[in-house]
Amino acid sequence: MRTAVYPGSFDPITNGHLDVIKRAARLFDHVIVAVAINESKIPLFTMGERKELAVKAVQHIPNVEVDTFTTLLVNYVVAKGGQTVIRGLRAVSDFEFEFQLALLNRKLNEDVEMIFMMPKESYTFISSRIIKEISMLGGDVSSFVPPHVVQALRDKFASRGLKQD
Amino acid sequence: MRTAVYPGSFDPITNGHLDVIKRAARLFDHVIVAVAINESKIPLFTMGERKELAVKAVQHIPNVEVDTFTTLLVNYVVAKGGQTVIRGLRAVSDFEFEFQLALLNRKLNEDVEMIFMMPKESYTFISSRIIKEISMLGGDVSSFVPPHVVQALRDKFASRGLKQD
Amino acid sequence: MRTAVYPGSFDPITNGHLDVIKRAARLFDHVIVAVAINESKIPLFTMGERKELAVKAVQHIPNVEVDTFTTLLVNYVVAKGGQTVIRGLRAVSDFEFEFQLALLNRKLNEDVEMIFMMPKESYTFISSRIIKEISMLGGDVSSFVPPHVVQALRDKFASRGLKQD
Amino acid sequence: MRTAVYPGSFDPITNGHLDVIKRAARLFDHVIVAVAINESKIPLFTMGERKELAVKAVQHIPNVEVDTFTTLLVNYVVAKGGQTVIRGLRAVSDFEFEFQLALLNRKLNEDVEMIFMMPKESYTFISSRIIKEISMLGGDVSSFVPPHVVQALRDKFASRGLKQD
Amino acid sequence: MRTAVYPGSFDPITNGHLDVIKRAARLFDHVIVAVAINESKIPLFTMGERKELAVKAVQHIPNVEVDTFTTLLVNYVVAKGGQTVIRGLRAVSDFEFEFQLALLNRKLNEDVEMIFMMPKESYTFISSRIIKEISMLGGDVSSFVPPHVVQALRDKFASRGLKQD
Amino acid sequence: MRTAVYPGSFDPITNGHLDVIKRAARLFDHVIVAVAINESKIPLFTMGERKELAVKAVQHIPNVEVDTFTTLLVNYVVAKGGQTVIRGLRAVSDFEFEFQLALLNRKLNEDVEMIFMMPKESYTFISSRIIKEISMLGGDVSSFVPPHVVQALRDKFASRGLKQD
Repeated sequence: MRTAVYPGSFDPITNGHLDVIKRAARLFDHVIVAVAINESKIPLFTMGERKELAVKAVQHIPNVEVDTFTTLLVNYVVAKGGQTVIRGLRAVSDFEFEFQLALLNRKLNEDVEMIFMMPKESYTFISSRIIKEISMLGGDVSSFVPPHVVQALRDKFASRGLKQD
Repeated sequence: MRTAVYPGSFDPITNGHLDVIKRAARLFDHVIVAVAINESKIPLFTMGERKELAVKAVQHIPNVEVDTFTTLLVNYVVAKGGQTVIRGLRAVSDFEFEFQLALLNRKLNEDVEMIFMMPKESYTFISSRIIKEISMLGGDVSSFVPPHVVQALRDKFASRGLKQD
Repeated sequence: MRTAVYPGSFDPITNGHLDVIKRAARLFDHVIVAVAINESKIPLFTMGERKELAVKAVQHIPNVEVDTFTTLLVNYVVAKGGQTVIRGLRAVSDFEFEFQLALLNRKLNEDVEMIFMMPKESYTFISSRIIKEISMLGGDVSSFVPPHVVQALRDKFASRGLKQD
Repeated sequence: MRTAVYPGSFDPITNGHLDVIKRAARLFDHVIVAVAINESKIPLFTMGERKELAVKAVQHIPNVEVDTFTTLLVNYVVAKGGQTVIRGLRAVSDFEFEFQLALLNRKLNEDVEMIFMMPKESYTFISSRIIKEISMLGGDVSSFVPPHVVQALRDKFASRGLKQD
Repeated sequence: MRTAVYPGSFDPITNGHLDVIKRAARLFDHVIVAVAINESKIPLFTMGERKELAVKAVQHIPNVEVDTFTTLLVNYVVAKGGQTVIRGLRAVSDFEFEFQLALLNRKLNEDVEMIFMMPKESYTFISSRIIKEISMLGGDVSSFVPPHVVQALRDKFASRGLKQD
Repeated sequence: MRTAVYPGSFDPITNGHLDVIKRAARLFDHVIVAVAINESKIPLFTMGERKELAVKAVQHIPNVEVDTFTTLLVNYVVAKGGQTVIRGLRAVSDFEFEFQLALLNRKLNEDVEMIFMMPKESYTFISSRIIKEISMLGGDVSSFVPPHVVQALRDKFASRGLKQD
């Protein structure tokens, strides 16, 4: 069985992520969406919330599972019986960072391969960060994230006293 | 009447910004320099200070106005009767971020067009961030910002106990 | 009257070009699509053919004119009474070349301003070069160029003995 | 069965190509190295020679086949029963071109997925073009291509009267 | 005597830095590794610790000295009798930032020249930031930093209660 | 004695090249401007003409010599007793190509170091190619190349029957 891991912060999961997940699910027997702890930035959603939003978003794709991880990515992949890490590429700046990460991970474990996929071009300008910014300013993000994520964003910002209309 | 909005943090306004503003003022009937609230970073100058520094810098250009905005950019542009957003491009890394922003704004409102202009090449390496760093270390920024901004930077850092000479 | 020049090889004109032209026609009183001689590459279509294909493609936009030019761009712009050059940006690599060209043109004539616009994201991967390659291999380019250009490409390659079906 | 196509000019095949092929052979049941006709550039080796050099280079990898193709890539992939196109990424400039190609191919056929893999970092600076240049100047390319390709390059340039020592 | 300054945060010094230092030490009579205060980010190691780790790493190279500085780089270089600033380039994104910095420093002092060197390709994906992330997650960084830095990282994270094994 | 080689096509030498040469002449005891044969492109000026134009341009800088070479760069550098290759960086796209070349040359000869310098920002948009294009169209290139190169370009294009005024 070919198992691939798709790691990320997923803060929150977007339609761009979902597009990559669907493509990966056609290439691999089993895809694990792996929510990372992301120590260096303070996420908007907790790890539990991020997992829950991802679970709901992928529940209709049979061979996709959502998990969380707090260790080194390559160690996590091996522990899950995976051989491949999937990354989405949206832009040139993405690419360079990913390139360095791929070379590094290969150094840490030669048996884990990193492959890159591209979301649909209409998703190339969507990032979790930009969606949070629009949402915080009360903008409509319903073309960029699934409906339950739209709601979660509204709830989150409303709980912080930011008007949402 | 053709109205263009030139949004930014302007923390503080630089000669590079002014160069773009002058070029825009020749292309459009009315240019609004729109100081953004910038929630994600803590600015050196308050929104009021940033506006005031910009007002003084552009007071000699008749068809330029300075304003502040706290909403989504495209909504602000429409509210002001504008049709165009102007962005300055200084570098390749700028470009990619701007490209994504342009596509996003277009998705949010098809009627607002984003156009890009380039400052003089001697301004391509000037950014508000780098000017603040030099100024903080006591360096001379008088070739990069107008005289009243030089003074404002000195006052700001002096008030923080950093020696300026 | 604000006149803008949109120069290029237009070998042949694509839907990406047309998207930029439409956006420019909303910003300026008069837009001149200026077909360049392009000495350094051998074009597929002659200068006359390229002009003719462009004329047919823009005939429904009232304030757009098609012309050819064989001199320095800035001199041509001044001779036509224009003040602005429009360039479409599709990718980071485009950008750098355009950046250098803009600085150069400014050096050659300070009064001609270069501005940049972005085509719709679904056109960012379309270039005249790639369309010719697909067409040469018998691929369907009808989503990338206007119908009369599809036909012109078929005729051109058929006349060279390449099967088109 | 999962079949992937790895298209290219392979003029000639390099250790960088071989590294990508080996990685792909672990991910897919069947990998087709597909030598393209490359109409736009005059190759050093004929299509037959390029295929032969590739065949010899991959003969020890059981699930890899070498083929040639002269049609549109997506059509070729479908005709061979493949679902995936593999591309190697070595550099940022590669990436942008590949990105556009991927979006284009997706437009031409939604069922063919393009994925990207990275060769070992010690191969990132190897390209067929640069190897031909070094070889033409009599340089040693034995760390960059398999031994039989070193020989083929020597023979080719010797037949053109360029001294090889 | 030709003196070059190699400035940076060195938080901590890596094998990539050491590679650049060794190359610089062959080109210049005297190389000063200059640890910067880095006000904008909170370093993992104090300025004193960063200097100490660097001193130990370069002690076997006779013409290299380690120092700290808290002023403008160009002023520091002049004060030390240097004429040249050395920067390592690892990636395209590095390059652009460095390019802007070089132009700025030249504006601040025309007599200080900035030159760029590249570390070995196996170090291009190593950065202090990425090493800290791996180390924090308990990963093995012994191929990326000298042994005493491996130990310092372990001690630092152990003192923060992060398990290291 | 520290000898550096500055290789290139110099077709023709520009003010940007001269700026890099002057900077290099301050860093090294001896600088060799090495005109390459450039087999892959047809130059405008012959190798002899390119050397002659360069000689005249640098004759006032005592420690600079002009030479031609037709072998592998690293072999040439060693044969001339040099240790260093100098390259000018003008743009991000330059950088990537240079990066690959530097890694390759290092592989071919570990003892030859490649360093990078930047011309003045007002020269970053000047390239031999763009100067030839402007000159061919009758444009004024006197701010971009030395006077004797302006004349050589006029003569060259006049001899081809292109009007120069």
